[in-house]
Amino acid sequence: MEDLEALVRQMTLEEKASLCSGATAWTTEAIARLGIPSIVVSDGPHGLRRPAEEGQLLSRSIPATCFPTASSLACSWDRDLVREIGQALGSESRALGVHVLLAPGVNMKRTPLCGRNFEYFSEDPYLAGDLAAAYIEGVQSTGVGTCLKHFAANNQETDRMTVSAEIPERVLREIYLSAFERAVQKARPWSIMCSYNRLNGTYTSQHRQLLTDVLRDEWGFEGVVISDWGAVEDRVSGLAAGLDLEMPGPSPANDARIVEAVRSGRLDERDLDRAVLRILDLVRRAHREAGSTEGLDVELHHQLARRAAAASMVLLKNQGALLPLDPARPGSVAVLGQMGVVPQFQGGGSSRVNPTKVDVPLDELREAAPQASFSYCQGYREDGAADAELLRAAVEAARAAEVALVFVGLPDGVESEGYDRRAMDLPAGHVELIKSVVEVQPRTAVVLQNGAPVSLADWVDRVPALLLAGLAGQASGGAVADLLFGEVNPSGKLAETYPARLEDNPSYLNFPGENGRVFYGEGLFIGYRYYDTKRVDPFFPFGHGLSYTTFAYGPLSLSSREMTPAGSLEVSLPITNTGERPGEEVVQLYVRPRRSRLARPVKELKGFAKVDLAPGQSKPVTFTLTIRDLSYYDPDKSGWVAEPGEYDLLVGASSRDIRGEATVRLVEGVRAEQLLDADSSIRAWLEHPAGRSTLERLLPAEVAGQFGEGPLPPFVLELPLKKLPMLSQGAVDETTVERIVAEAGQCMGRPTP
Amino acid sequence: MEDLEALVRQMTLEEKASLCSGATAWTTEAIARLGIPSIVVSDGPHGLRRPAEEGQLLSRSIPATCFPTASSLACSWDRDLVREIGQALGSESRALGVHVLLAPGVNMKRTPLCGRNFEYFSEDPYLAGDLAAAYIEGVQSTGVGTCLKHFAANNQETDRMTVSAEIPERVLREIYLSAFERAVQKARPWSIMCSYNRLNGTYTSQHRQLLTDVLRDEWGFEGVVISDWGAVEDRVSGLAAGLDLEMPGPSPANDARIVEAVRSGRLDERDLDRAVLRILDLVRRAHREAGSTEGLDVELHHQLARRAAAASMVLLKNQGALLPLDPARPGSVAVLGQMGVVPQFQGGGSSRVNPTKVDVPLDELREAAPQASFSYCQGYREDGAADAELLRAAVEAARAAEVALVFVGLPDGVESEGYDRRAMDLPAGHVELIKSVVEVQPRTAVVLQNGAPVSLADWVDRVPALLLAGLAGQASGGAVADLLFGEVNPSGKLAETYPARLEDNPSYLNFPGENGRVFYGEGLFIGYRYYDTKRVDPFFPFGHGLSYTTFAYGPLSLSSREMTPAGSLEVSLPITNTGERPGEEVVQLYVRPRRSRLARPVKELKGFAKVDLAPGQSKPVTFTLTIRDLSYYDPDKSGWVAEPGEYDLLVGASSRDIRGEATVRLVEGVRAEQLLDADSSIRAWLEHPAGRSTLERLLPAEVAGQFGEGPLPPFVLELPLKKLPMLSQGAVDETTVERIVAEAGQCMGRPTP
Repeated sequence: MEDLEALVRQMTLEEKASLCSGATAWTTEAIARLGIPSIVVSDGPHGLRRPAEEGQLLSRSIPATCFPTASSLACSWDRDLVREIGQALGSESRALGVHVLLAPGVNMKRTPLCGRNFEYFSEDPYLAGDLAAAYIEGVQSTGVGTCLKHFAANNQETDRMTVSAEIPERVLREIYLSAFERAVQKARPWSIMCSYNRLNGTYTSQHRQLLTDVLRDEWGFEGVVISDWGAVEDRVSGLAAGLDLEMPGPSPANDARIVEAVRSGRLDERDLDRAVLRILDLVRRAHREAGSTEGLDVELHHQLARRAAAASMVLLKNQGALLPLDPARPGSVAVLGQMGVVPQFQGGGSSRVNPTKVDVPLDELREAAPQASFSYCQGYREDGAADAELLRAAVEAARAAEVALVFVGLPDGVESEGYDRRAMDLPAGHVELIKSVVEVQPRTAVVLQNGAPVSLADWVDRVPALLLAGLAGQASGGAVADLLFGEVNPSGKLAETYPARLEDNPSYLNFPGENGRVFYGEGLFIGYRYYDTKRVDPFFPFGHGLSYTTFAYGPLSLSSREMTPAGSLEVSLPITNTGERPGEEVVQLYVRPRRSRLARPVKELKGFAKVDLAPGQSKPVTFTLTIRDLSYYDPDKSGWVAEPGEYDLLVGASSRDIRGEATVRLVEGVRAEQLLDADSSIRAWLEHPAGRSTLERLLPAEVAGQFGEGPLPPFVLELPLKKLPMLSQGAVDETTVERIVAEAGQCMGRPTP
Repeated sequence: MEDLEALVRQMTLEEKASLCSGATAWTTEAIARLGIPSIVVSDGPHGLRRPAEEGQLLSRSIPATCFPTASSLACSWDRDLVREIGQALGSESRALGVHVLLAPGVNMKRTPLCGRNFEYFSEDPYLAGDLAAAYIEGVQSTGVGTCLKHFAANNQETDRMTVSAEIPERVLREIYLSAFERAVQKARPWSIMCSYNRLNGTYTSQHRQLLTDVLRDEWGFEGVVISDWGAVEDRVSGLAAGLDLEMPGPSPANDARIVEAVRSGRLDERDLDRAVLRILDLVRRAHREAGSTEGLDVELHHQLARRAAAASMVLLKNQGALLPLDPARPGSVAVLGQMGVVPQFQGGGSSRVNPTKVDVPLDELREAAPQASFSYCQGYREDGAADAELLRAAVEAARAAEVALVFVGLPDGVESEGYDRRAMDLPAGHVELIKSVVEVQPRTAVVLQNGAPVSLADWVDRVPALLLAGLAGQASGGAVADLLFGEVNPSGKLAETYPARLEDNPSYLNFPGENGRVFYGEGLFIGYRYYDTKRVDPFFPFGHGLSYTTFAYGPLSLSSREMTPAGSLEVSLPITNTGERPGEEVVQLYVRPRRSRLARPVKELKGFAKVDLAPGQSKPVTFTLTIRDLSYYDPDKSGWVAEPGEYDLLVGASSRDIRGEATVRLVEGVRAEQLLDADSSIRAWLEHPAGRSTLERLLPAEVAGQFGEGPLPPFVLELPLKKLPMLSQGAVDETTVERIVAEAGQCMGRPTP
């Protein structure tokens, strides 16, 4: 497989078509005659799901390490850690003979209810894009490919195979494509997976603008586009649109349709050849890089999973420094709630990993504090319902102990691919347990196991300590023990807002859609962009997370007070650990434009860094901004626009805990002004020097004269130029308006691209 | 002018075209050769704006009575009163030689910022539609025509002549067209005025679906469609789409384009003939009904304006029964704020009336309570800004008096056609005045003069009494005196929510749009539909208003527990005046569906009545509901759908003060279920008896067998049927799926229309 183009020329039409669908559910077609081997793909993202029975779509899978899910891992805000996880996944892939890992997923969290949120990183495309890039770099550094998914706008499970996401162009570019763009450009994934849904009416599996115009022509993606399993609707349209490989295979009916379409002239054979060439390139790369498979070091990866889990958990609340508990103190601890012994650590669906081992929280706690005495009560029924007997026992245990640890969360099956949640509530039995325990035991910490926000109403104010364990993988239990007893200092921060009520969610009025369509009526205002712009207070804001130590933020310094479109800007500040424990801090940089022609969120994340500091230690943190970080996408210009002017740079410990500000002026910028035309207001014409002089030159004197004498009434100023004939009752004719527009257009020129 | 069709046959092509635009700004073309006279039209809605100089677009107008603006009048919730105002406007039209009054306006209040909100009735289409119908009935009962406007979706002034309102079909039908539909069908206006804006990309002046398919073919409108003044873009397209008359005239260029288009075959001459016929019919009717003009009884109409103003003002707050003041008590009253002597009683733009006289609040107060002593201080600068000297004087006066009346509002020029407000704030000087006065004088009542909600933040909690005077016309001052001194008992209620903050407004993220388009991202959820569904608390909810007496709501009785699509339902209850003054109560009926296939607001207004009661008196109030009152518009069925099931009927004193509930069951209903197709989920197929049996009959036994054995995993249940071939890995083929869909479709039939 050297000269791929020569290879394509040797292939029959039927062979080419056959290569465009898999051989089995998890392998590509091999063509022995030409020495084309098959490659193996496998589900991710947080571990391998390699079926034990080859070729079966649904089958029990071979054990593999279950790392923290993306929803947890994102809370680490740690590119290096995510890269390391990627490397580990790559080495497990090699151990299991997998060439391409079907991951990561970077869809946006539009609603807490999306069943598959736990597979995704964030409500913010900058954070999601950067972490996906790190993941891809990690996996691909081992010679294993990735498949970035689900492209695009697959932000709900309800009707996922039929619904059309109706998203205006600007919203698509800035929010729903942005993380894909970032990951593609930073890390060059070998492949990308189209989604099930339609986008503005067209299935993404046959969406030419998406799969070719944007992905390849604009972003420069050179890999293979693979269908989500079963996403193909019209195979021939899809191929022409840029969908290379249909999965699962085999798909003889569609292969035949491709052949027939080429024969009948409906499909250009060059489109087919292009897809075949890309698939061959992927196969060649996979085998070239594959090298020898390695053994899987279960224990080493479990330790990594534990370290990653601890770095991904978020200490949401810690009144009176209840945590960490002292492991050396021989006190009594009540562990309450079944999730303390049967942890929830991943979600349902195709990402489900058969773990190599599972840490039991209670056991890990015992090990972490051998001098303490532990009691355990189930607290609620297995299905989450309240049970008076179980509750009473738990309350008694809480009362008898010196501290209570209440384990709650979303039971298995609640969060899954294939369907969405209906509400944000925890199971009634879990809520009951928390409320009852905290009444008898003020020293209560709640440990939450969930992959997307739950309601904290009715109890969050009463509980002094709350640890978001998330869905943190098979070593979650160990990580919880590490954090509760202070072996590890919490350093995670929320990658997603915890809203006070489901009704507050920006998609509330437009989710999950109806009659096959879902309108993204909230536009750009997803997550904190909404809560901040609408000034709605959440339980916990985006970026929030506590530590057992404290950090001081020094003053901001900028590499320059001005920035040009071609240049970049460095924003630096010192961070100091002012407490008594070593710790890590996630520092966040937000940009707030002072003015904008198009509406913009109050602020947007444009940088983040995680820094580890010994007590008393200080380190500088530096962010680099480019023109894109100041820009919005203007559909009228089909491009990114940064208006000249001032931009505030906000550095904070969370999106609502801003510690320092500075302002940079963008000079020149990318010009955002509208060309004046007949639809522009008389005000806009008069405010523009070239516009004003053209008016004064070409309008009849009695009309133009009025512009000189004091301000016109606002009522008149706001009229578009094209209404001058009507307004002047014929004193200005239509030809004059046309001439004004033509001449002014010439002297203003087109805006700089 | 008897046989109009014969008349059209006698007209030359040029004559026909010339009739399709005005002769002047305010008259239609006359054709002497054929005895076709001209008719005169004039701006409204709350009074005549008849230019003194004939034919001038902008000119000082002849004095006429300025009645309360629509925003005020709507707060009366009184169909009879609105009809009476309409009659008075009709008689003023006759006195001034006007044949068609360009009113009423029924656009929806999507944002408090819309500059023209004061010309419109409500945020609710039921209320707006009913009041518009009463207005039309009143005017047309005098032989003068009306022109319902602005059709449609002209809900902002920003870019009004270019912006495209992007509104999904269902939202358009249920919210933005609904008041027009109601008014057209109940009251048959002689004409309707298209708006300036585009709707989903097409100018409404050339929007065939709007002007012909919906307006004429569906609603049965038989009158003339007139362009808003200057709204015509492409005259020929407009004519073909259903726009009959272009205004203002003359428009010789467009007349010539019509002639040319007919000659070249671009325009079907029958389209032109239809427009001409309609215009002729309007002219004939106007002259047939015109009769003799009457003199204008200025004083009589001023008294009506005063009565209407008093019935339209809303007592928002009255702690400790501060109001009414006792007119017989010889105390001292401080009247503070310039609006106490220079009242704001109408807005700016084409609706501006040159009033026959204007009541000065201070004078009227003095007259109402001759034994009291009044002081007056200006309080703030004329432009609304704070002034330390003026403020100090006002505070001293407040301290010295026994009660303070603070007059505030939006200064002249803030609310106007042609532009929108930028914020909800009152002028700083007004806010300062209120806050300073209430600090020294606990007995303070605030009188608010404004045509759309303003922010009440920072002071509403501190002020015991608040009267919304609105923009209540030239007799506003007298009405304020009537209410403050108890000569009249307040009976108005809000026709629009007063939100706590501008950010809470449902259109906040999508107003006023950008790049020429405004997305109605909030969908159906305008006004209280949003605040109730998102559970956001406003300052004062839709329908709220206090009285000096109290009312008891008796139990609801229904004419039946069940309702059929063809039938109707009567909902009755007794209302009793339990206080010591005569008073009027606005009783409101809301409908809340228990279940719905499509998303619906929590509740919607479907009935209202105003009842006057002597102390101790009780009267029954009865509402009649029809199937439409339970229905939503389903774009997939291109029609109104009411699902069988239970509907709660809520009767209240406001949208958030529900006093009684009952439930009716709709039997049969209009079937809303979806036909099963290949996109329907396996769950939907299994839940439908015919669907299930078809599956069991046609699927291979090994697949169908699985449906019998316990529940399938939700993951599988939610897949669309078309994915069975993929899911079964070929055990089910595509042909089988097609056969299942075809056979099931037959046995289920089509849904009842």
